[in-house]
Amino acid sequence: MTTPSREFRFADRIADIEPFRVVEVLTRASELAAAGRDIVHLAAGAPDFVTAAPIVEAGRRALADGHTHYSPSGGLPALREALSAHYARDYGLDIDPRRIMVTPGASGALLLLSALLLNPGDGMLLTDPGYPCNRHFMRLVEGRGQLVPVDATTRFQLTGALAAAHWRENTVGAMVASPANPTGTSLSLAELADLSAAVRARNGHLIVDEIYHGLGYDGPTRSVLEVDPDAFVVNSFSKYFGMTGWRLGWLVAPEAAVPGLEKLAQNLFISMSTMAQHAALACFQPATREILEARRDIFRQRRDFLLPALENLGLTVPCRPDGAFYIYADAARFTDDSEAFCWRLLEEHGIALTPGVDFGHVRAREHIRFSYATSMERLEEAVGRLSRVLG
Amino acid sequence: MTTPSREFRFADRIADIEPFRVVEVLTRASELAAAGRDIVHLAAGAPDFVTAAPIVEAGRRALADGHTHYSPSGGLPALREALSAHYARDYGLDIDPRRIMVTPGASGALLLLSALLLNPGDGMLLTDPGYPCNRHFMRLVEGRGQLVPVDATTRFQLTGALAAAHWRENTVGAMVASPANPTGTSLSLAELADLSAAVRARNGHLIVDEIYHGLGYDGPTRSVLEVDPDAFVVNSFSKYFGMTGWRLGWLVAPEAAVPGLEKLAQNLFISMSTMAQHAALACFQPATREILEARRDIFRQRRDFLLPALENLGLTVPCRPDGAFYIYADAARFTDDSEAFCWRLLEEHGIALTPGVDFGHVRAREHIRFSYATSMERLEEAVGRLSRVLG
Repeated sequence: MTTPSREFRFADRIADIEPFRVVEVLTRASELAAAGRDIVHLAAGAPDFVTAAPIVEAGRRALADGHTHYSPSGGLPALREALSAHYARDYGLDIDPRRIMVTPGASGALLLLSALLLNPGDGMLLTDPGYPCNRHFMRLVEGRGQLVPVDATTRFQLTGALAAAHWRENTVGAMVASPANPTGTSLSLAELADLSAAVRARNGHLIVDEIYHGLGYDGPTRSVLEVDPDAFVVNSFSKYFGMTGWRLGWLVAPEAAVPGLEKLAQNLFISMSTMAQHAALACFQPATREILEARRDIFRQRRDFLLPALENLGLTVPCRPDGAFYIYADAARFTDDSEAFCWRLLEEHGIALTPGVDFGHVRAREHIRFSYATSMERLEEAVGRLSRVLG
Repeated sequence: MTTPSREFRFADRIADIEPFRVVEVLTRASELAAAGRDIVHLAAGAPDFVTAAPIVEAGRRALADGHTHYSPSGGLPALREALSAHYARDYGLDIDPRRIMVTPGASGALLLLSALLLNPGDGMLLTDPGYPCNRHFMRLVEGRGQLVPVDATTRFQLTGALAAAHWRENTVGAMVASPANPTGTSLSLAELADLSAAVRARNGHLIVDEIYHGLGYDGPTRSVLEVDPDAFVVNSFSKYFGMTGWRLGWLVAPEAAVPGLEKLAQNLFISMSTMAQHAALACFQPATREILEARRDIFRQRRDFLLPALENLGLTVPCRPDGAFYIYADAARFTDDSEAFCWRLLEEHGIALTPGVDFGHVRAREHIRFSYATSMERLEEAVGRLSRVLG
């Protein structure tokens, strides 16, 4: 490499933004696998399935048809309409397509909402544990994620009472995920309404990350839009729809927010992937949905296998996860340094896991996230290896 | 639409971020075309060509091969290596692949660099006229674009002397584009070295937008990296490589900046489009380069037709554009409100153009940007229509 010929000074936020550790785990796991090691992958936050064939075929067709140019900054009109129809069909909701903006992954939606809602010094309530990038998007625009410790008593979720107790003078809103990462727990409609009321009473904004919608195993995943038409919703084609590598998400916003969001999208993105959007249109076809529902059932079977297996090993899971593809296990019996523990499991036993420290601070060093986005056979292999290590 | 049930307050930056007007022109032009009007498109900042066949084929093959998952946050290693080889072959430069980060369009690179370099209140010198989104990326992170008026005396470019004259206490760097949008003028190696010296003398950062590299018509486009190994370079697969709708760009950074940029990319993007990156590998094959070079020649022919044609019509172009696909014409003889003038040309005469106000403030109301990213036949049609309006 070139030797730097001078001192570089970077912005202060760089010191505050942490690496997304799961990415480092995944990188190391790939290296070990490339070196011939047999790695069991329970770290990834992405479905193991290849994108469903009808979607892939639609993408290939879009390319053959020459859809290689920019497309509108808010998304292809046909896709916004398809998403509106999706809300009508799956949720019984009437959402104007103009309130739905396609984004480059849910990551793009998080960028737009942070930019829209946070002045410097403003805070937004977030759960600890929770998806780590949220607070870094807020830090990017000089806002702050205000971490609220949550535990099994609220199924690791923010409640109206917790929001009220933690609301500060500079708080402008609250953000939750349902189903949540890393805990896989969801909010009921009543819980969403309770939280919405508390946020609304403080004239705050409510953002709900619904990217794991569709992956609910004990009943349908319910949208905050069913109880709060003013909420902001972040969603994605990555998880239930299985399109991670295509980088496509969306957000639903109240009408008053749309002009600001459009200006931001024009400047920050210009356009999303055009062929990915044409491909995504195939997500809503019955043949595709059939594949996706079958995959959901497979995820459920994996949870139903892995959850009791981990508990048998002495790992504690105080709240039954009902969605996403994660189990957040308390490993206090085995470690008080889950990061070192996970690295050891990876290096010595070929088990890739995500340490709790990726998701916050609250008892993070005693927790491990298990992703069951891998085959039943590999889950069995993982449990076998773990039983030899922990038994 | 749902009637908003309460007042929404948004962040102050929203008031400062302007729409990217060319997007509004393009939207209206599409509406008119859809309604049956014959529109001549001279507004778009994107090649009219469909992505070259070998790249499209590589994309289709990547999809068929199941490359639908996330890929590393810094880009596919093979693509970073291909870009390093590109710098060796086309520029004679030895750039470590680790210093090259693939980004979701050049837009993604602009986001990373704004986040890396600007604390709140910090400023970065930019030319007026220039690419409008630059200052909005800076506003996003509470930095400021410090506009430096430029004119024909410096070929609408920033010079070392101009940078010195406009450098303020809060200035942390300067950003230029070569070839530039909207003027199509490039900086020579000597001019890049002069600017670099002025920036370095002030311990500042130098960013050069090289997204129109490869589209130079009066000699090769030269990279700032040939004279300043510490400069930040923004580049893109959208223009010369013709991959706009795939959303893929890259940046080259000094080694000291890479860890911070990697953390940012992990949090803000997770991954770029995986199939787009596999497709982009085909950009560097000889068969593809042959197509791209032929397209470059076509752009040159268009410039050589349109430039004298516009001058014959009474539009003034004080600096011969040598790259990109833009002509920035002084229309003072015809209007002192180029925005209204462009809308009239679109609505009444079916000619889509971009008003100067999209690119800054300096005599912007007397300027119009002509994009020659359309066929010779349509350029002739445009000149015919313009001669009837202006003649």
